[in-house]
Amino acid sequence: MKKKSSFLQTPIEPFAVEAGLTADQVLARMERISFQGRNLATAHRIWQKMLKDDVTIFLGMAGALSAGGLRLVVAHLILNRYVDCLVSTGANLYHDLHETRGQHHYVGSPHADDAALAADGIDRVYDTYASEEEFISNDNWIADFATTLELRPYTTREFLHLLGGHLWKTTARDGILTAAYRANVPIFCPAIADSSIGMGLSQARQIKAGAGYIDIIGDIVESANLIIRRPRTASVVLGGGTPKNFINQASVQAEFYSDQVGGHRYALQIVTDVPQFGGASGSSLEEAQSWGKLAADSDKVSVQSDATIALPLLASALATTAAPMLATRTMPVFTLASRVMTVDGQTVPSERFEEVNEPAV
Amino acid sequence: MKKKSSFLQTPIEPFAVEAGLTADQVLARMERISFQGRNLATAHRIWQKMLKDDVTIFLGMAGALSAGGLRLVVAHLILNRYVDCLVSTGANLYHDLHETRGQHHYVGSPHADDAALAADGIDRVYDTYASEEEFISNDNWIADFATTLELRPYTTREFLHLLGGHLWKTTARDGILTAAYRANVPIFCPAIADSSIGMGLSQARQIKAGAGYIDIIGDIVESANLIIRRPRTASVVLGGGTPKNFINQASVQAEFYSDQVGGHRYALQIVTDVPQFGGASGSSLEEAQSWGKLAADSDKVSVQSDATIALPLLASALATTAAPMLATRTMPVFTLASRVMTVDGQTVPSERFEEVNEPAV
Amino acid sequence: MKKKSSFLQTPIEPFAVEAGLTADQVLARMERISFQGRNLATAHRIWQKMLKDDVTIFLGMAGALSAGGLRLVVAHLILNRYVDCLVSTGANLYHDLHETRGQHHYVGSPHADDAALAADGIDRVYDTYASEEEFISNDNWIADFATTLELRPYTTREFLHLLGGHLWKTTARDGILTAAYRANVPIFCPAIADSSIGMGLSQARQIKAGAGYIDIIGDIVESANLIIRRPRTASVVLGGGTPKNFINQASVQAEFYSDQVGGHRYALQIVTDVPQFGGASGSSLEEAQSWGKLAADSDKVSVQSDATIALPLLASALATTAAPMLATRTMPVFTLASRVMTVDGQTVPSERFEEVNEPAV
Amino acid sequence: MKKKSSFLQTPIEPFAVEAGLTADQVLARMERISFQGRNLATAHRIWQKMLKDDVTIFLGMAGALSAGGLRLVVAHLILNRYVDCLVSTGANLYHDLHETRGQHHYVGSPHADDAALAADGIDRVYDTYASEEEFISNDNWIADFATTLELRPYTTREFLHLLGGHLWKTTARDGILTAAYRANVPIFCPAIADSSIGMGLSQARQIKAGAGYIDIIGDIVESANLIIRRPRTASVVLGGGTPKNFINQASVQAEFYSDQVGGHRYALQIVTDVPQFGGASGSSLEEAQSWGKLAADSDKVSVQSDATIALPLLASALATTAAPMLATRTMPVFTLASRVMTVDGQTVPSERFEEVNEPAV
Repeated sequence: MKKKSSFLQTPIEPFAVEAGLTADQVLARMERISFQGRNLATAHRIWQKMLKDDVTIFLGMAGALSAGGLRLVVAHLILNRYVDCLVSTGANLYHDLHETRGQHHYVGSPHADDAALAADGIDRVYDTYASEEEFISNDNWIADFATTLELRPYTTREFLHLLGGHLWKTTARDGILTAAYRANVPIFCPAIADSSIGMGLSQARQIKAGAGYIDIIGDIVESANLIIRRPRTASVVLGGGTPKNFINQASVQAEFYSDQVGGHRYALQIVTDVPQFGGASGSSLEEAQSWGKLAADSDKVSVQSDATIALPLLASALATTAAPMLATRTMPVFTLASRVMTVDGQTVPSERFEEVNEPAV
Repeated sequence: MKKKSSFLQTPIEPFAVEAGLTADQVLARMERISFQGRNLATAHRIWQKMLKDDVTIFLGMAGALSAGGLRLVVAHLILNRYVDCLVSTGANLYHDLHETRGQHHYVGSPHADDAALAADGIDRVYDTYASEEEFISNDNWIADFATTLELRPYTTREFLHLLGGHLWKTTARDGILTAAYRANVPIFCPAIADSSIGMGLSQARQIKAGAGYIDIIGDIVESANLIIRRPRTASVVLGGGTPKNFINQASVQAEFYSDQVGGHRYALQIVTDVPQFGGASGSSLEEAQSWGKLAADSDKVSVQSDATIALPLLASALATTAAPMLATRTMPVFTLASRVMTVDGQTVPSERFEEVNEPAV
Repeated sequence: MKKKSSFLQTPIEPFAVEAGLTADQVLARMERISFQGRNLATAHRIWQKMLKDDVTIFLGMAGALSAGGLRLVVAHLILNRYVDCLVSTGANLYHDLHETRGQHHYVGSPHADDAALAADGIDRVYDTYASEEEFISNDNWIADFATTLELRPYTTREFLHLLGGHLWKTTARDGILTAAYRANVPIFCPAIADSSIGMGLSQARQIKAGAGYIDIIGDIVESANLIIRRPRTASVVLGGGTPKNFINQASVQAEFYSDQVGGHRYALQIVTDVPQFGGASGSSLEEAQSWGKLAADSDKVSVQSDATIALPLLASALATTAAPMLATRTMPVFTLASRVMTVDGQTVPSERFEEVNEPAV
Repeated sequence: MKKKSSFLQTPIEPFAVEAGLTADQVLARMERISFQGRNLATAHRIWQKMLKDDVTIFLGMAGALSAGGLRLVVAHLILNRYVDCLVSTGANLYHDLHETRGQHHYVGSPHADDAALAADGIDRVYDTYASEEEFISNDNWIADFATTLELRPYTTREFLHLLGGHLWKTTARDGILTAAYRANVPIFCPAIADSSIGMGLSQARQIKAGAGYIDIIGDIVESANLIIRRPRTASVVLGGGTPKNFINQASVQAEFYSDQVGGHRYALQIVTDVPQFGGASGSSLEEAQSWGKLAADSDKVSVQSDATIALPLLASALATTAAPMLATRTMPVFTLASRVMTVDGQTVPSERFEEVNEPAV
């Protein structure tokens, strides 16, 4: 009898439907199917491993996830410290602020008459609407807040912490910015100039000369220093964009100054882009290994899916399965309310890279 | 105060994570988010409506869903009569037969060395492997079965029912073909010649002159007659391909002979293709309305997602929510084991379109 | 000084814009850029190699290419014998016939009001319209033609040759079917039942009992025999679908009966689907090697692009560069007007696979 | 006889292959085909209209186009003033600088062994390689240059002009940065912090306290002021990302201060993303109209294609067809070498939005 090929080890186990399955049970039954379903189940497993290990977990967030109804998922991930540091586009923070201020996005249609929407002052994001008038009021609110700050440059990390604090104090509502404020989780926003938060800051400058200065290069230094301090990291990316690269760049930059940094130990991404066109958003995690962004032996998975399907299922599953890991996690402790942040009690300057590295915990 | 735009009616309700959520609860909380997540929640609602209404539900199935671990989901949908008629690619039925015969597909890697796989006689489907030797044994099994049949042309509907029966009798295992056999649900396979089932049939002819004749045009006639008999229909499509068009074509063809046929009353599709390149697989359900494939007032939704993510979640949710609808459904009763099938006790010829239409139930 | 990595051999040569560049010059300057542009340039080079080598070239054609304005490109490829055998979806042949009969498709909009189109009897294919009334006249025309044939089963290869001949004799217009007829190039249409040609055939049966019989399994046998006769083959695939698999299946089937068959020697595909969802349309050419569909050392390239962009450029370039290769090509000579086709003067039965193989030329 | 539907106006004209066709002739023959081919031909026509009209043309550039061999196309578009203002990701400028400094990217494979690449210090971008060591030398070169500047914040517009000038003076080689320098075309880079240019700037700060300050909010003010000065604009976007939004945002922001601004008059985008997932990169130009980013009557087209295929063809065609338009274009004249840029001789502050608007030319 012919010997079975060594390639044939683990049989596909077809998904078995049953009434009453919980999200984590659904994912457990997807572990041994194929394609993106398997990948999503693997993402669930890898995220659990991250939580069990001693790693600083970065969350990158691009795409219209806040407008699209996922902002409280992200807030939940932050408040419960499934993640330790958020890197976001400006739009996701802005649309979060919009709702935290008590306003809404609305269910709409992708087939709308855009001229009619424009006439009514309605802005469309695929199948979702919002009021331009309310957006203008957000811009003003951000501008007004920015003019209350001392006139000096702010990293986005510092500015967004202050903004989150102001938002929490004035609204006491859940959201990404307020969750990050309350949980002392830093937010970096490398492309803040490409968003309505940036527009608000530019209007602050209109109101008050010298307001609205952002030290975006300081964010590079600070994010790298954060990794120099805690060289074991993991990356969770939703949607690619600037956050995906910024998280990787911080690791690459940190490696210049600490030989304990060796790329993320875990990586998972949920993306809709594909690698074939060469763009960073769709680039594979294998490619990231060539750059040293990921450790050669990292646990990693790409899930090719809209986050509005994959993330509710994944986060619901983790809410059930990750409780014990969250309870015993070793996670970084930050203070964020000043120009120089601290990590585990030590300052992390935005002015200079740290050349001496304390051994990781 | 400015009046609120009429476009702003239903606020987005952000997804709220909670431990222990069941699949249907996850989907319920996705009803008022955005993008494909909302679409998947809408698909859940529309499928429930189909089950409550008096419609014949077609299921179209393309892509490597059987190899990829979804064959028992489809079997479940058939056995519990979430659907009344399956239109499938040959490959999905073949890979189903492969496992029903006690063989397996295996967990593999998309980054495999294909030369090494070829050397080992392993066939790869993205991240899934199978043994070529076992495939050859399937081909022979199909060929042998086909040679036992009376020498005459068979519609795929008749042939696949007989094949399913033989499979059930020899294996007593669950699968798509055996479920359809047991539930008396017809299967059409318009592109059977483009599959290993077709290869098996061609080998039957090698063994026995005159064997392996398929009357594929008879399938067109029969599928149209089925709709002429029961003009109220619904379409559920996984992955586009020939099944998507065949289901629509049957409706268009039926309309020539019965003015009670007016396009599907409900349609949902889970596809990865997009409309922008003009292909039928990715074509929108709106476009289908121009052709009369869908009724102008049909309830419809496209979900842009890999079925290996969307279907396990959707089917698990329905298993919980659809029980009362299934219990009271009015569904067609078929007999399938002969050249002329019956629907609700009346014959449905494959030779001529029925020009006189009895009023629908 | 550090030695340069062996990975760094051929520098990217940026595309240099210049007035007056011809299509082939554009592609020549894309040879050493990246991503899909490089792949398209490689496709140009590989097709030239096919033409220089002694191989039988299959062309697979899916997607709405005929409706979308590429039918005369395909006709050109056939008439000038860039290809030797066409495998097509039914829709592409039907939309070709529509225009060859003197009717048109029309420039439309993807944002059309489909209810208004339906009311006007207009069928939409993304951004292209056609008259349903004219489509019905095509169906009748096909049905009428089919009733003139002797009452027996026809392979699609035979039927489509006869249809092309009738079309040529009644219209004398260029098109795919007429080009194939004139150039004695066989057309296989494995999913003919999933198309309006199939609908026409089903209506033939309505008119005349016993008409409209297609022997689709005969097509499997005949296509495999064609490769057994001429075991060195190449595959050019536009858009995936059933043609892609049928071309590969013919090679795999032929291999059972001839050890000179070893998978296609060259393969190029222009597809919009991606491999990540497991479907055959988007599957990689590497994957095809695991199955033996492609030779391990085959020259191959996938171009991820809409064919309506890639093919006009590619075919225009070949029109300039391939003339010398076409002039000296060794290509198969077929006769197609009867039940048994001949290849290079020898019969190719549709009833039995040929077990004895003459050495390839 | 039935009246022809008003929807059927312009017949599809199938592409006719011919030897020796030039790029513009290829596009001309694609004008009346369908799908993305037609869209690319339309893009050619719209760009010509932009050049004939009195509009300021913005070019947005995301994705790995410089590494991928398109940097000299973009340089050509800038030097010949097909465009008036570039908005780019940092990576595209960095990879441009890499080659302008005499180094290369290399032809590679998407199937490379990334561990082997990492061991050799090779960074992979899909199918393209580069030397990490050379990248480090670029970072140092940028850092060194930045330390030579006066210690104050710089908009990216000012910094990149100075960088381009330094590059031109030290290399005299063609590229994007040097072309923009020579043609006095401003470059904005809103996400500069998310790129190796940002990393270089962060290292400048390491070398010299106070170096490497970027005033990213100043870029928002300046780009809006540019549009307030010249309210008639057009947008050409390659690949989405931050450039796409930044160009639109500038128009929206400018509209607050000038009622002569009414959204871009023309817009064309070549993107691989699709709208269905809600992200800005794939968002439709129709959606942009709801926001007022585009004028309601703007001429616009989206081309769903990899830019490495579409852009070489489009730019080659324009090189032939646009010469007369370029010769007579009315285009803005900038001076860029100082903190305050001028447009047509008037200063454009980065500190305050201009509230008084001079009539457009």
